[in-house]
Amino acid sequence: MFRTPYYVVIINTWESDDDRGYAEMGRRMTELGTAQPGYLGRTSVRGEAGHELTVFYYENPEAIAAWKQVPEHLGAQRLGRERWYSRYTVEVAKVERAYEFDAATPRS
Amino acid sequence: MFRTPYYVVIINTWESDDDRGYAEMGRRMTELGTAQPGYLGRTSVRGEAGHELTVFYYENPEAIAAWKQVPEHLGAQRLGRERWYSRYTVEVAKVERAYEFDAATPRS
Repeated sequence: MFRTPYYVVIINTWESDDDRGYAEMGRRMTELGTAQPGYLGRTSVRGEAGHELTVFYYENPEAIAAWKQVPEHLGAQRLGRERWYSRYTVEVAKVERAYEFDAATPRS
Repeated sequence: MFRTPYYVVIINTWESDDDRGYAEMGRRMTELGTAQPGYLGRTSVRGEAGHELTVFYYENPEAIAAWKQVPEHLGAQRLGRERWYSRYTVEVAKVERAYEFDAATPRS
């Protein structure tokens, strides 16, 4: 959890049948993306039928816009459309409220 | 995808070892939650180690606040903390931009 306000990019992806170069590109994008100014972290869950849901966290919308335009990342987005994904959705949102529960934390 | 602006509630849950009554309550909360005014839909992925990531969609923050206070839902939230979850996070966010790609849709 981060201090509000912060931003999220919610990405749903559904894999195609073609994963040539996907793992390698994933590693490179993780390397570049985590080094991006304003990047805070991510949480990702991979489910059935090639569906993956990932939430990326950023300090502000400028960081998101800058990452979207990084040349290597533009190439990865293009390959995503041409090769790796049958479908994806992208949503950019401002987090206004956040809280958590942890059973290991004593409550008053 | 919905027409912006709309709201999301991003929920990460990690199951405890105690699932007594969980499936039944899940069905009841789905029944009540989908009937809630302003509810638009959800996407959910269940991954490893009891981690589930769900995004609920709403028309506005008032719908989210109203659902949070529904008596049966308050009871479910309490049981979630006492019994079903070892940890969870809740984030409420306003979606400012959304787009999608579908390989089955012809491109110009």
